[in-house]
Amino acid sequence: MTYPAVRLKPKAEARAIRHGFPWVYADELVTDRRTQALAPGALAVLEDDLRRPLGLVTVNNASKIIARMLDRDPEAVIDEAWFAARLTRALAMRERLFSAPFYRLIHAEADGLPGVVIDRFGDTAVIQPNAAWAEAHLDALVAALVAVTGVTNVVKNGTGRARGLEGLTEETVILTGAVDAPIPVPMNGATYMADLMGGQKTGLFFDQRPNHAFAAALAKEARVLDMFTHVGGFALAALANGAVSAVGVDASAPALALAEEGAKASGLADRFSTRQGDAFAVLEALGTEQAQFELVICDPPAFAPNKPALEAGLRAYERLARLAAPLVAPGGYLVLCSCSHAADLSAFRNASARGIGRGGRRAQLLHTGFAGPDHPALLQLAESAYLKALFFRLDG
Amino acid sequence: MTYPAVRLKPKAEARAIRHGFPWVYADELVTDRRTQALAPGALAVLEDDLRRPLGLVTVNNASKIIARMLDRDPEAVIDEAWFAARLTRALAMRERLFSAPFYRLIHAEADGLPGVVIDRFGDTAVIQPNAAWAEAHLDALVAALVAVTGVTNVVKNGTGRARGLEGLTEETVILTGAVDAPIPVPMNGATYMADLMGGQKTGLFFDQRPNHAFAAALAKEARVLDMFTHVGGFALAALANGAVSAVGVDASAPALALAEEGAKASGLADRFSTRQGDAFAVLEALGTEQAQFELVICDPPAFAPNKPALEAGLRAYERLARLAAPLVAPGGYLVLCSCSHAADLSAFRNASARGIGRGGRRAQLLHTGFAGPDHPALLQLAESAYLKALFFRLDG
Repeated sequence: MTYPAVRLKPKAEARAIRHGFPWVYADELVTDRRTQALAPGALAVLEDDLRRPLGLVTVNNASKIIARMLDRDPEAVIDEAWFAARLTRALAMRERLFSAPFYRLIHAEADGLPGVVIDRFGDTAVIQPNAAWAEAHLDALVAALVAVTGVTNVVKNGTGRARGLEGLTEETVILTGAVDAPIPVPMNGATYMADLMGGQKTGLFFDQRPNHAFAAALAKEARVLDMFTHVGGFALAALANGAVSAVGVDASAPALALAEEGAKASGLADRFSTRQGDAFAVLEALGTEQAQFELVICDPPAFAPNKPALEAGLRAYERLARLAAPLVAPGGYLVLCSCSHAADLSAFRNASARGIGRGGRRAQLLHTGFAGPDHPALLQLAESAYLKALFFRLDG
Repeated sequence: MTYPAVRLKPKAEARAIRHGFPWVYADELVTDRRTQALAPGALAVLEDDLRRPLGLVTVNNASKIIARMLDRDPEAVIDEAWFAARLTRALAMRERLFSAPFYRLIHAEADGLPGVVIDRFGDTAVIQPNAAWAEAHLDALVAALVAVTGVTNVVKNGTGRARGLEGLTEETVILTGAVDAPIPVPMNGATYMADLMGGQKTGLFFDQRPNHAFAAALAKEARVLDMFTHVGGFALAALANGAVSAVGVDASAPALALAEEGAKASGLADRFSTRQGDAFAVLEALGTEQAQFELVICDPPAFAPNKPALEAGLRAYERLARLAAPLVAPGGYLVLCSCSHAADLSAFRNASARGIGRGGRRAQLLHTGFAGPDHPALLQLAESAYLKALFFRLDG
């Protein structure tokens, strides 16, 4: 197989790429007519300015990340066997760490498949092919996925924000098998219901698993308030670990219905209640009611998904902390989460600290958690750990 | 009780102190003759430049941290009841998180007792009174400790580096009860032997507990190399979780003897071996032997304990990573730890990444761990998380 060549500009960071950086930005590549003519997702050999090959990349002229490294071997063939090798390697780590087959199996660049996310729910896998090359090679990917893991159902979830940047359309379809109903997912002693066809993202957030577990360890005999509970994330884990009651708050009625279904499936429904509404409004109402909980968790959507949104996002995190802190009983615990790429750990911690202070409380920081190990980071991109969870104990 | 007053200079950061910052640096305080005459550890009311009281502090003219906040109430009385309240609050969190009474009970400022560390080993507690005020009030502290926790043996470990700065002498003595032999400590499924009278620090490092646990989860069927094993830290947890073999390396023969004793007590002695020597020399020798392990851990002493030592320290971390990486079998795991205050997470991660790269390997970052929750941080000092553990998976 012969691939076309694309070439770095003389001053581009060939050194970073040699050391494992997986991306080429548009302004680093010579975009002559031949390169411009490459279809989105086309494969090409990346060369440095002296025409020395650096590896096999996928090119997308429509994206700011114009090339992504697929293989250091410039002669690699992207076929089922190639996908199977990467899936096998990723699977070995998950099987070592998780006792049941429910996890993120492929976390994009870090697992060697740029722009591709695969979550596994037992016999069912959900693929997010968020880059054009993956959409183009989807058949080989799915065949390898079925062969390596033995899953019988494969869903393509095409709702990722990144797809627009890649020039891909939105669609969620079943590629193999059948998915008729929400799937029960065992995690941290509870059972969650994941709606793979209609839910947010791929139906469940596996990334919070270790943070759910840490919060659950604090929850014994606690009254729990779980803001942005989605399908019951923190609440059900807390109840399974001995919380006396948990209230799950979310703006989405379908999410709360799944949370209630999960509570039933977990045998925890008698201690679980839900409240639908805007989180800030609910927190203010609970403040007026002088409600108190031994454990309060806020796990909002990304308030600062990108740099322009950073300042407003940090103010939103601060406000959330300010409204949540007074609801924590003396000596109780407050968990604040951020899944904002743009807000780094230090900025998020400072915003949280300001909010807690303005909420009239003092705090110790017990624990800082990130996404679970089924969400690895490429070493060269590790700075941008998107998920942060801060565990505070408030004053007595 | 009437306390003398000490006063902040006009431009000092009274605002930070009002918001919970616990320290006053020497250049922020008016050090008139009256203040200079205060004995090390004396109690005083801290006032702002307008003579408004900020709280009760302990003063030590010999220390760069000239005053430490003890209580926001300027009329607080430091007696057994005062200590009991703080110990009770600290104990409640530990009892919630740990099923057995083996943990750091008091982690200095964050637990409201500046400069004081207390580790608990069942019926025995080890106090490190690393500030002059605590030495002066030791009787009340010990009485409260016995009353609140029910421990029968109390050791004073006076070997902390900080004691010199506080003008305190070194001595380790039994204050109450008796300690005749190393104490067995159950942790992560293994039993460790803690020598409270002759060991390093307080005999065992509780701070690594969650990192031991994470490494152990990776250890099933693995051959394990535990560099700087001390009393068997990572090695025994890995063996208890199914590692096929573990080699513990340390420069200290007494530490290795305790590790072997722990392996025996854990029923793991047949899979555990030790190697005494300088870590760098041992790594080089293992490299020459082309030894391979599925899990390699490096948990060295602080190479960068302070800012002047930072550059040399980072080079030492890089060198360790460079020598360790080639010993990791394809697809295996490398755990690199730093307990250096001066090397922040980003600097340590970069040094580790450089070392792994120079060792000829590529890596994913699976997990970043810090000290366990029995080592809380005061929110105002949270930036300086001293313990970092990075969990890498290396290429296949």
